[in-house]
Amino acid sequence: MRRVGVIGVGHGRFGLRDDASLQELAFEVYREAVADAAIDPQEIGATWIGSVPEYHKQRSVAGVIQEYLGLDPRPTWLTEAACASGSAALHTAWTAVASGMQDVVLVMGCQKMTELETAAILGLMGRVGDVQWESVFGSTFPGYYALFARQHMDRHGTTRDHLSAVAMKNHDYGALNPKAMFRKTIDRQKVENSKLVADPLRVFDCCANADGAACLILAAEGRAREISDRVVWLDGLGVATAPMSVLRREDLCTLPSAVEAARQAYAMAGIEPSQVRVADVHDCFTIAEILAVEDLGFCDRGQGGPFIAAGETRIGGRIAVNVDGGLKAKGHPIGATGVSMAVEIVRQLRGECEDRQVSGADVGLTHNVGGIGQYCFVNVFRRE
Amino acid sequence: MRRVGVIGVGHGRFGLRDDASLQELAFEVYREAVADAAIDPQEIGATWIGSVPEYHKQRSVAGVIQEYLGLDPRPTWLTEAACASGSAALHTAWTAVASGMQDVVLVMGCQKMTELETAAILGLMGRVGDVQWESVFGSTFPGYYALFARQHMDRHGTTRDHLSAVAMKNHDYGALNPKAMFRKTIDRQKVENSKLVADPLRVFDCCANADGAACLILAAEGRAREISDRVVWLDGLGVATAPMSVLRREDLCTLPSAVEAARQAYAMAGIEPSQVRVADVHDCFTIAEILAVEDLGFCDRGQGGPFIAAGETRIGGRIAVNVDGGLKAKGHPIGATGVSMAVEIVRQLRGECEDRQVSGADVGLTHNVGGIGQYCFVNVFRRE
Repeated sequence: MRRVGVIGVGHGRFGLRDDASLQELAFEVYREAVADAAIDPQEIGATWIGSVPEYHKQRSVAGVIQEYLGLDPRPTWLTEAACASGSAALHTAWTAVASGMQDVVLVMGCQKMTELETAAILGLMGRVGDVQWESVFGSTFPGYYALFARQHMDRHGTTRDHLSAVAMKNHDYGALNPKAMFRKTIDRQKVENSKLVADPLRVFDCCANADGAACLILAAEGRAREISDRVVWLDGLGVATAPMSVLRREDLCTLPSAVEAARQAYAMAGIEPSQVRVADVHDCFTIAEILAVEDLGFCDRGQGGPFIAAGETRIGGRIAVNVDGGLKAKGHPIGATGVSMAVEIVRQLRGECEDRQVSGADVGLTHNVGGIGQYCFVNVFRRE
Repeated sequence: MRRVGVIGVGHGRFGLRDDASLQELAFEVYREAVADAAIDPQEIGATWIGSVPEYHKQRSVAGVIQEYLGLDPRPTWLTEAACASGSAALHTAWTAVASGMQDVVLVMGCQKMTELETAAILGLMGRVGDVQWESVFGSTFPGYYALFARQHMDRHGTTRDHLSAVAMKNHDYGALNPKAMFRKTIDRQKVENSKLVADPLRVFDCCANADGAACLILAAEGRAREISDRVVWLDGLGVATAPMSVLRREDLCTLPSAVEAARQAYAMAGIEPSQVRVADVHDCFTIAEILAVEDLGFCDRGQGGPFIAAGETRIGGRIAVNVDGGLKAKGHPIGATGVSMAVEIVRQLRGECEDRQVSGADVGLTHNVGGIGQYCFVNVFRRE
């Protein structure tokens, strides 16, 4: 397999984007990535689109976007793995380059979520659970994660304060990220007085549906070095699945797919968790970030709450986590999120994040979850 | 890149399958393929699911199917390229094995189309066209292909009889295929007296929505040879895109994506079109099979109608095309179709097709179109 590097990135503003169609969101970040890579776009051999199609009025979005970008007749198709669809596109694209089938490819994560009413979105999301045995009984995503939070509180002594610490940290950094949906800091009272969604999770424990797009240009090692002197290498990939059904989970205090995906990615990159300097993890709910730092081995099992509350995941702490605001403050346009995470890590490793920059960042990681861990992708990035 | 072979196949009955959920359709063909390959299913390292998700009540179907098959924690995700989604899964899986990331993988094409009302399906299909500029004006798939048929008639002298010859041939072979949706032969009167859908296309010029599933097990060369002595090799892959918008097509008598995908697949396999003995092509409408045999170079440009009407694409003719009944008589469960085509070609090359067997079949081809050629995948299979 050939080594694969990121040579260009693009990232649009997340949030309500009624100023742009899906194709326009894609074009905006495509143009930015092509300029960033400083390549002739005709060199792009194929495109993979991470998106969850049922939120869009437009069908067959991969082909429509490829046409809009002017990249036909080159191949494209869509990858879907719920909220990890963007990472599925990245994995597909990486494999095409590593195999030798392609030399330079585009990975696009894009999603419009504001075309549908909130009730329709909730219905769609609930049906990620088994429609025959589970979602018919009214299960929702906040409900699933509330179960995880309750179990974690009971077993490990995680507190309301720990959950709030995640929300406050991520809003602090979202305020510094010009592409984030929410750019205001919040205090403990704001979180704890917010409306209860699914006990113990409140509105400020939950990320928000958003429109948005992000993209990457990948190249095989030889071509990457010719094109760029600041290549970030995607050296470790992990992906695993777990039952969606909570009835089939042995333990609600971990996502087993995340543990397995992390094991694969660390082994492939040849690193230990302690070597990771900066990570973007899937904080769809505050409890999810606590599970993530434990599943990824950044702290001991059960210690995610105190670890985060003590500031160890802020810039200057042991490892910087979600210093772009995370899903929580940056927003969560589901198909775009995995690619957005990768863009952030690339920029951190290139030292371009200004007042959010993690100094000495040489190894970075993304952790992108689909469903409630039905899918998990973990990727390790490195600069030389 | 490593050579990749097919070591196991499974194919369910296509048609109205209200006897089975989507997961059950998948399990039925999975069990058959595992038995066919005679492997321990735990050897399967990953699964790719070709499906168009918006037709299903169930969301996130890849993970749900992986759980149902008992294959978690292994990776899976969904690929979508409209009616070529199954071929997108096959291409993804092939690349993972060729690259060395995986040794043995499962490719599943599956689709339930009968959960929705016909009107809802028509609406979904229309929205494959650009929703901002095209589908809003009422374009439908029969309408698009009717334009192609009219242009072909005007330019090349293609006739009503030529279209009918495609339908009659495919129903003749569908009658011999126990997995086909329609197992009755039809005569010229039946086609020509059927209801007009979009002039000149009548009901019997159109394939039917269906439920169904098909699957393949792929392995890298070394492992494939250990497992099986009747491996069919996937030696040539091609994939290309074209604008969905007919306004951006220079010529309505060809699918440019098919021409380009065929060029790639022939070059990669190192063969000429004349070496292909058996092909499954995308006859979503009768005119589409005429375009296909021309785009694939099986006959001269403009001669597809007379070529088919003269029996050259029947068993015993120059090249056997859609002798499983094609989409027309076998049915078209959109996500499953590309995989179904591959299963048929594998069985033909293994000599297992009984009264539909093409004698001496050593090279076979699949041609799977998404949209109106927005995507096209062409694959070349070979036995030693």
